[in-house]
Amino acid sequence: MPHTPEEIEKLKHAPAVAGVEDLFLRRWSPRAFADKEVSVDDLKKIFEAARWAASSYNEQPWRFFLGRRGDATYQKILDVLVEFNQGWAKSAPVLIFSVASNKFAANGNPNKYSIHDTGAATAQLSLQATALGLHTHSMAGFDHSKARKVFAVSDEYDIGAVTALGYLGDPASLHDQLRAQETSPRQRKQLSEFVLLDWDNPAL
Amino acid sequence: MPHTPEEIEKLKHAPAVAGVEDLFLRRWSPRAFADKEVSVDDLKKIFEAARWAASSYNEQPWRFFLGRRGDATYQKILDVLVEFNQGWAKSAPVLIFSVASNKFAANGNPNKYSIHDTGAATAQLSLQATALGLHTHSMAGFDHSKARKVFAVSDEYDIGAVTALGYLGDPASLHDQLRAQETSPRQRKQLSEFVLLDWDNPAL
Repeated sequence: MPHTPEEIEKLKHAPAVAGVEDLFLRRWSPRAFADKEVSVDDLKKIFEAARWAASSYNEQPWRFFLGRRGDATYQKILDVLVEFNQGWAKSAPVLIFSVASNKFAANGNPNKYSIHDTGAATAQLSLQATALGLHTHSMAGFDHSKARKVFAVSDEYDIGAVTALGYLGDPASLHDQLRAQETSPRQRKQLSEFVLLDWDNPAL
Repeated sequence: MPHTPEEIEKLKHAPAVAGVEDLFLRRWSPRAFADKEVSVDDLKKIFEAARWAASSYNEQPWRFFLGRRGDATYQKILDVLVEFNQGWAKSAPVLIFSVASNKFAANGNPNKYSIHDTGAATAQLSLQATALGLHTHSMAGFDHSKARKVFAVSDEYDIGAVTALGYLGDPASLHDQLRAQETSPRQRKQLSEFVLLDWDNPAL
């Protein structure tokens, strides 16, 4: 079983056709994080990458609550996670909670792409983290109504995801099943399953 | 006014704190595309980048209809765009229409993150295109019900976005207002506006 960070990163490196940027292949979602802070400088770079994501009418609907271990925001985010996620996410030194403005500021019209675009910004944030030797793990598993209450999220915002951020840790810190996931290769559908001419015909 | 592709790329290069990957800074959404095909090899790399995006329970809910100029899929996508978008998007040699499976295949439970994760995959696709010297421009402006009909999209899928893909073209091909947008610097909110400790306090 791979054990060192180097062994694990090698195993998680996505197999792909040649010519794909390494950044995409190195990004994966661990559950074991190291007991090591993320610097403010690195956090600025990570959110700067999110900042330049594309959005409908350049609305930039994403808002990120940023919690660092020891502060109130971190504790609030950790508290809304389901117990299973709390179990491992508490090892991450940074927790991020995204929400998305669902109206255009200019005219109050509904923005149907707020969550789509927040997903895009979160992908950019995660890739920049990867570039800095960090990892992210985004989660759907938290109490959405509790998060809305705890963060006073009005109806004008939709709930996004919670993302753990930090340096890779030792999988030995995880329970058996999670350790197995943490140390097994990544799996994806084939291109022919999701790049289509129509429902019956692959495009590539 | 900047005019050559080199001048425009320089103008559109996002200003950002040092240490942010150039890929994020070079990505922007043009409306003038060159009359130059995208190779199948490059399309494979672009969708491979999307393939390795993160998704809730690794569901990979994204499906992309891929149209290349001259094929039926391209024409169907072009036909559902609003007239304004048709005007410029027809210059792109590739049009992509995304939909997102809104149920988990394993158990039929609703997947509330299908559009969020499709936004992430689309960001990765766009960034890989940037790495290959290409550009993308995603659009919300199309007839969603018509798209659902034309592509026989069942209720089990949500409608995503349409993305134009190709090489940068000459802004002189655009009408005045669009040409002005095509040749003006990019704008974003400050980090302090969207990275928060709580609604009243910026985190960075």
